[in-house]
Amino acid sequence: MRVTLSLDFGGTKLAAAVVNTGSREWLRYERRLSPANADAKTDLDIMRSLIHSLLQDITPSAIGVSFGGPVDATTGTVRLSHHVPGWENIPLKDLLEKEFGVPTSVDNDANVAALGECRFGAGQGYDSLFYVTISTGVGGGWILNGKPWRGAAGMAGEIGHMIVDPSGPICLCGKRGCVERLASGPYMAQNAREILASPQESPSGEILKNLVDNNLNLLTGQLISEAAAKGDNVATAVLQKSAWALGVGLGYVANLINPQMFILGGSVTKAGEIWWNVVQKVAKETALPEVMFEIVPAALGDDAPLWGAVALAEDNVTKNLRR
Amino acid sequence: MRVTLSLDFGGTKLAAAVVNTGSREWLRYERRLSPANADAKTDLDIMRSLIHSLLQDITPSAIGVSFGGPVDATTGTVRLSHHVPGWENIPLKDLLEKEFGVPTSVDNDANVAALGECRFGAGQGYDSLFYVTISTGVGGGWILNGKPWRGAAGMAGEIGHMIVDPSGPICLCGKRGCVERLASGPYMAQNAREILASPQESPSGEILKNLVDNNLNLLTGQLISEAAAKGDNVATAVLQKSAWALGVGLGYVANLINPQMFILGGSVTKAGEIWWNVVQKVAKETALPEVMFEIVPAALGDDAPLWGAVALAEDNVTKNLRR
Repeated sequence: MRVTLSLDFGGTKLAAAVVNTGSREWLRYERRLSPANADAKTDLDIMRSLIHSLLQDITPSAIGVSFGGPVDATTGTVRLSHHVPGWENIPLKDLLEKEFGVPTSVDNDANVAALGECRFGAGQGYDSLFYVTISTGVGGGWILNGKPWRGAAGMAGEIGHMIVDPSGPICLCGKRGCVERLASGPYMAQNAREILASPQESPSGEILKNLVDNNLNLLTGQLISEAAAKGDNVATAVLQKSAWALGVGLGYVANLINPQMFILGGSVTKAGEIWWNVVQKVAKETALPEVMFEIVPAALGDDAPLWGAVALAEDNVTKNLRR
Repeated sequence: MRVTLSLDFGGTKLAAAVVNTGSREWLRYERRLSPANADAKTDLDIMRSLIHSLLQDITPSAIGVSFGGPVDATTGTVRLSHHVPGWENIPLKDLLEKEFGVPTSVDNDANVAALGECRFGAGQGYDSLFYVTISTGVGGGWILNGKPWRGAAGMAGEIGHMIVDPSGPICLCGKRGCVERLASGPYMAQNAREILASPQESPSGEILKNLVDNNLNLLTGQLISEAAAKGDNVATAVLQKSAWALGVGLGYVANLINPQMFILGGSVTKAGEIWWNVVQKVAKETALPEVMFEIVPAALGDDAPLWGAVALAEDNVTKNLRR
């Protein structure tokens, strides 16, 4: 029986799985948190131990890897991680090929998740789609003509730093009011914190404040979703602004590329109905009336990158068989 | 000798040409203005007379058509023209195939010009590019993986109605400060007119006013370029805003799709160095630092759609031979 090994180096978690070729269920699966002070070496060591425990003495036919950061997919070299130090220019594909002796493909998590959803998830049967992950950051991956579109230098999909509110708050990217600055989980928390701490405004935000015992440093995107679901006014405003920013970005993307479908994944997409309704409404209002599309949640959830890595590995095997 | 016939139905002009297969020079070429009160029938009649004069008694092997408005490229049906009435749902491919008995392909002008520039112009040897025409309107056409990308419903490329200045003036599309509202020729003229007519502002704009003998109704995009080149302050401000709006739009597109190249065509691109410098600078500032691209002028000028129609026709012949 041939198996493929798939690996997911996220910013805060590491996951690995083996699957029988053609199967849609994991044969074995492991997930670990990456320690707070991890560097590239720590993550690689943890991943090695996961791999050995998963593979036992099987040799996989190929390895597919999702990496949470910019990757040169043609060489399989990681450019850097925005979350974990020490990943600059690590030749991850070469490392793994030398260590395990099998063909390995590496790409960034948004591209890989897009492929996973297209092959095994919400995008099955669709020819063109844009997968967007909205969690710590906001990033996207393309499937066009049924295949990943990575861009001339592998940089396609950067919806996060498109400006939707030029008079909005400043992002780490240096610009005001970009999608990520308004829509991501940590920035939602920061926005709520600033509103609650502001003496000029007179918000109540009582539900939100109670959730963190008035310690605003404990605010997270998830708590904002919870408070909004319970009717908190500050949380609702912040969540609606997040959804509005993403909706405007999706509308622009629809006009530019006219994909059949948008698939949204990542922690913020678990925010509930308020958020989803605003995203849908604003995206449709922003796009030209003739431009149609669906916006759906990721079907594979947090495993989208891992399933995409399976697709990467299987494609690599098919390509080698054809040679 | 096999020839192809290529047709360009622009909003204000009609052009047709025949070319020997494989040649890069027109065998015969005709261009006419479309009368101000023309409807679809008038344009078709004028085009027929051009065709008969060009073809004499040759039968072309295929016909390629560029149409200045939305087209369903799979059926070759024109959806409408924003400039000429009566084009709603005209099956242009079917009409021409019945009349001339040869395979015909029809697509909108931005897509066709993108193909023309990729095959025969500034984009030769490039695998991914975005062609943008900036004249009466602002529209774009994609080449991705060396082939036209039209979108799920043929609507891809709509950069014109992306908002870059949410507090800007209202466009016919219903939104404020979109690229077309700031960058197109007629809207540049309108913006200059409003500044010059405004009593609160104290612009001089003397050079611009002299060019039209103080009759502001005569202002055009071209006159604004001329006045800016001579140092007129109002014209320079309007032209710079046009270039800024387009530059922001291109920067967003670069982040989203990461094409190798942008090719700019249309009358506004003849505005001179001031305009080009601002477009280049703002696009680079708007894109993420890792996202590289070139921005170059269309090499085929006003003939880009006509040469693209040659490529459409030649591809149609090749496809039929392969069957």
